[in-house]
Amino acid sequence: MGANTILTPAIINQAAGLAELAERWRRQGDEIALVPTMGALHEGHLSLVRAARNAAGRVIVSIFVNPTQFGPHEDLAKYPRTLDHDLELLRPLGVDAIFTPDENELYPPGFSTFVQPPDLSVLWEGAIRSTHFRGVTTIVLKLLLLSRATITFFGQKDFQQAAVVRRMLIDLNVGCALRVLPTVREPDGLAMSSRNRYLSADDRRRATALYRVLTNAQQALASGERDGHALAAEMNQALIDAGFDSVDYAVACDPETLQMADPIRLPVVLLVAARIGGTRLIDNLLFEGP
Amino acid sequence: MGANTILTPAIINQAAGLAELAERWRRQGDEIALVPTMGALHEGHLSLVRAARNAAGRVIVSIFVNPTQFGPHEDLAKYPRTLDHDLELLRPLGVDAIFTPDENELYPPGFSTFVQPPDLSVLWEGAIRSTHFRGVTTIVLKLLLLSRATITFFGQKDFQQAAVVRRMLIDLNVGCALRVLPTVREPDGLAMSSRNRYLSADDRRRATALYRVLTNAQQALASGERDGHALAAEMNQALIDAGFDSVDYAVACDPETLQMADPIRLPVVLLVAARIGGTRLIDNLLFEGP
Repeated sequence: MGANTILTPAIINQAAGLAELAERWRRQGDEIALVPTMGALHEGHLSLVRAARNAAGRVIVSIFVNPTQFGPHEDLAKYPRTLDHDLELLRPLGVDAIFTPDENELYPPGFSTFVQPPDLSVLWEGAIRSTHFRGVTTIVLKLLLLSRATITFFGQKDFQQAAVVRRMLIDLNVGCALRVLPTVREPDGLAMSSRNRYLSADDRRRATALYRVLTNAQQALASGERDGHALAAEMNQALIDAGFDSVDYAVACDPETLQMADPIRLPVVLLVAARIGGTRLIDNLLFEGP
Repeated sequence: MGANTILTPAIINQAAGLAELAERWRRQGDEIALVPTMGALHEGHLSLVRAARNAAGRVIVSIFVNPTQFGPHEDLAKYPRTLDHDLELLRPLGVDAIFTPDENELYPPGFSTFVQPPDLSVLWEGAIRSTHFRGVTTIVLKLLLLSRATITFFGQKDFQQAAVVRRMLIDLNVGCALRVLPTVREPDGLAMSSRNRYLSADDRRRATALYRVLTNAQQALASGERDGHALAAEMNQALIDAGFDSVDYAVACDPETLQMADPIRLPVVLLVAARIGGTRLIDNLLFEGP
């Protein structure tokens, strides 16, 4: 494909249509990459799509705000839906198909089978959002099976989500590889997120503390800090001092089990979730050694 | 393939080996049929294998006594394991691959993702055996994904199991068709089951009541009986009178939702489960009209 070729992707909104197209590709021997998104695309998503484009002969991007991963009091209704803009952003990237189903297409009447996510889903995000990961694993499995994907791409920003999905892929023998790509950040360090647009200008400024607190903790680790509880307490206090309203968690964990580490052994992942002006932000940093 | 050709199936006990072989077949465009069994094969299983042979270019039979579908006080330890005999029975049927993994191959350390089965799994068998269908849907999904199956075969004898699996295949977009084949019976009507061998000679004779009670109820339906509770009570009493120790359920249900039907509308399925001499037997009869 020439550098200037722009491929017009198939826009598909029916599950059967996606399955049929993908099955044809698979039977041709094509590798198929799926990048599952909820739309409101930003540079983080686009980095996943570019990696998918390099890795596989066929690239499918799904855009679906998945209701089953939202709790009853969460932001499902106000979650940003920017389909036209998303399609614009994807246009230069050479995607083969974009899957934009409506809710009824993926959750038809009588739907009641879910993926019960692995044990590590009860920690952190799962402790705060009790049915969140059940919704995530269910929709990810459905999309992977419909798209006959042989590889899928997730962002490290949702660190626990990637760990949960990785365990699901193994446990259910899904036969799909997982690649996790680095968090893409704004120039001031804030992790890109579709939810950043909820922030007021003031809160947006204060929100930079999230990454600053993580990099400070990383420096402490590099200087030899191994007290997991002390580091957690420090991150917690620093977030409150910086203007966050509350901290859901700020911890140092084993990157695979996500159990809190104390004493800390490397590699370690720092996970934080905190609230500011009604918006909940998460971020993380993996530290493998100095 | 000539009528006298006997194909030697590949015997595979590693999940990765099965996936690799099946993926190759799928990429060649072969249809792949999976017949999942727990071994202790009888004519019921063999009828599924023959149908699979007719339906698909590649036939995989799995033989795996799945621990997650047994309750803590059930018969996992004593469940019959007759692998050599099973292989003998399969030999003339022209199977392409037989998958006989050990437990660790399908449930490795850290395994903790399950399929949470659909709503209808809480009824009848699910009410008595609380985690049974979770085990069934989990292993069936795993085996279908490993074998890249495009069609799978189940026996009607486990009516609710087939209904649960059908719903799972739809809900999780598995992309695999389901065929349910008629129950194969002994000459005296007893449904073939690997568990029949648990029965003493006396209990084996009494066990024929299970099918007799079902056919009597079918005659009542043909004569116009539409009182669901009366029919259930009659079946229940007849089973006790015939020497069953207890009846778990004996009911007339909607074949799709498995909700008890009263008044009865057609089609209707009669479901029974009863215990005799420590053995639990199930059977059913679908009545679509006179």
